[in-house]
Amino acid sequence: MALVAEIGKEEKNPERTGVELLTTLVAEDLQAVNKLIVKHMDSPVALIPQLAGHIVAAGGKRLRPMLTLASAGLCGYRGERHLGLAACVEFIHTATLLHDDVVDASDLRRGLATANAVWGNKPSVLVGDFLFSRAFQLMVADGSLDVLRILSNASAVIAEGEVLQLMTANDTSSDENAYMEVVEAKTAALFAAACRIGAVVAERPEAEELALERFGRDLGIAFQLVDDVLDYSALQADLGKSVGDDFRDGKITLPVVLAFQRANEAEKVFWRRCLEDQDHQEGDLEKAIGLMQRHGTLTDSMAKARDYASSARQALEGFAESPAKAALRDIADFCVERAY
Amino acid sequence: MALVAEIGKEEKNPERTGVELLTTLVAEDLQAVNKLIVKHMDSPVALIPQLAGHIVAAGGKRLRPMLTLASAGLCGYRGERHLGLAACVEFIHTATLLHDDVVDASDLRRGLATANAVWGNKPSVLVGDFLFSRAFQLMVADGSLDVLRILSNASAVIAEGEVLQLMTANDTSSDENAYMEVVEAKTAALFAAACRIGAVVAERPEAEELALERFGRDLGIAFQLVDDVLDYSALQADLGKSVGDDFRDGKITLPVVLAFQRANEAEKVFWRRCLEDQDHQEGDLEKAIGLMQRHGTLTDSMAKARDYASSARQALEGFAESPAKAALRDIADFCVERAY
Repeated sequence: MALVAEIGKEEKNPERTGVELLTTLVAEDLQAVNKLIVKHMDSPVALIPQLAGHIVAAGGKRLRPMLTLASAGLCGYRGERHLGLAACVEFIHTATLLHDDVVDASDLRRGLATANAVWGNKPSVLVGDFLFSRAFQLMVADGSLDVLRILSNASAVIAEGEVLQLMTANDTSSDENAYMEVVEAKTAALFAAACRIGAVVAERPEAEELALERFGRDLGIAFQLVDDVLDYSALQADLGKSVGDDFRDGKITLPVVLAFQRANEAEKVFWRRCLEDQDHQEGDLEKAIGLMQRHGTLTDSMAKARDYASSARQALEGFAESPAKAALRDIADFCVERAY
Repeated sequence: MALVAEIGKEEKNPERTGVELLTTLVAEDLQAVNKLIVKHMDSPVALIPQLAGHIVAAGGKRLRPMLTLASAGLCGYRGERHLGLAACVEFIHTATLLHDDVVDASDLRRGLATANAVWGNKPSVLVGDFLFSRAFQLMVADGSLDVLRILSNASAVIAEGEVLQLMTANDTSSDENAYMEVVEAKTAALFAAACRIGAVVAERPEAEELALERFGRDLGIAFQLVDDVLDYSALQADLGKSVGDDFRDGKITLPVVLAFQRANEAEKVFWRRCLEDQDHQEGDLEKAIGLMQRHGTLTDSMAKARDYASSARQALEGFAESPAKAALRDIADFCVERAY
């Protein structure tokens, strides 16, 4: 599919391919985390490491565990606890991906077949449960009730967010507040927790915990906003998922909320048919993108993402300059720049 | 359906309708636990308490939390921590039921429509995740890393057992060891943990923790063996599920393992067609039950259940006589007597 909306093109930096500063900063730690991930997803039940390995490999660039590592670095932490906890964060994320793909009946994730497409829904549900339990076993081995509190709270909030998303799906009357509530819960909560536990292991004052939590939360919101814009604008090859997935699933993301609010009566009929009735015709996605461009809803959603990314950067202001701080600031920049 | 195998009829006690001793013993505590369950399954996301309330109500007689309560009583515990932890145990159990019913595509549980039948698979998966997270939040609030270790280990083992069950399904070459491994993991692990944490909150020596763990494990194994026998023998009205569910799903339970081992060639062809090829014809269930009766596999499975129930009773021997001990012994008796 060659649909490319002209979103944020002015920011495009052709040499930017990823999150180099962060990746370089935590490279050694991340290798150790990857080893822990492989070690702890093992089980005498062969299908578990097989399926978990597939999703862990397909799961992307380890953004969340890298945030834990960099946050610990920002707080001057010198021990090894952040490694196991970064693996926990990735396990929780991976468990939610497995369950998400079942819930969304997705076939592709980052260009690879999803676990449910390969092995079916049943093992995907159960291996998700295993990884989730394993995450808690690792936290118990770490021994911090504070970390357990932060990550069990995040897990409950994520599940609430996913259910809320399900309830607002196909409902064009759902508004920006409902959308933001879903995003804060299903995405930003784990970003926030991943960052906050960096300050916890370093035993820093609560103010630093809260600053890192805010950084993670605002970064997570920016990240999800951009993801939702990309679903209507990216080249499939770049994103590794099909453009239009959210549209076909009837997910009510910000570009849709704004497009419906700004729609005339005929457009409202169109949106209701596509999103509420899920009655799709040839050319609907192109039309939807055209309406979003006409009403500036992709641009406005990107502007909102930039606001949150900027707020994330501000949350770091109290910390002394360091390579970790530079890398975290950079990831906030990247998160909105990737929208080419 | 009026298929009733003559299993264990000699033990039938027509006045026995349930687990009166245990229920009476923990009645007051259980009311408090039920209040905690209702309180903690609440969420601003309305579908969560709605769906969770349905499964919690349909989930049966609260056997596992009652075990936690009675075990704490057996250990002379006088505080209130056992109440919250009993609620945790029920949340973990409920989460696995929700995911089980999705995995098995079940329509009925104890005579009521399953949550997945009413609301679909998606919210069932996600509300299961929520209840599981909520269980860990409650454990964190309790503050015992020992309890967190015991229940996170049990959760991981349960998930492993469920995956293992999936892998052995439809495989008639699966043997008694594989069956026992599944039972120990998917059922006995949570019974064992539910009992053990009673000793943990009472701060009793490790020997008592281990004795209660053994009691719970052996009781859980007996319980599952009887459940698997009942799937080929109970009146549907008594069990609240359809006789023959396991048969239709191709689950390899002990009565099947033994029947296949003792089968002649023609019978093996029958079992393979039904369980491996899932090619079912009118009268197959009746034929399967007939073969099990001819080869005594239901009777032998019940004998094994009685051995485990007896081993469970033995595990209690080191504890002083008390109403709690009598109630726990009684539940071990009931567990095998319910097979009428």
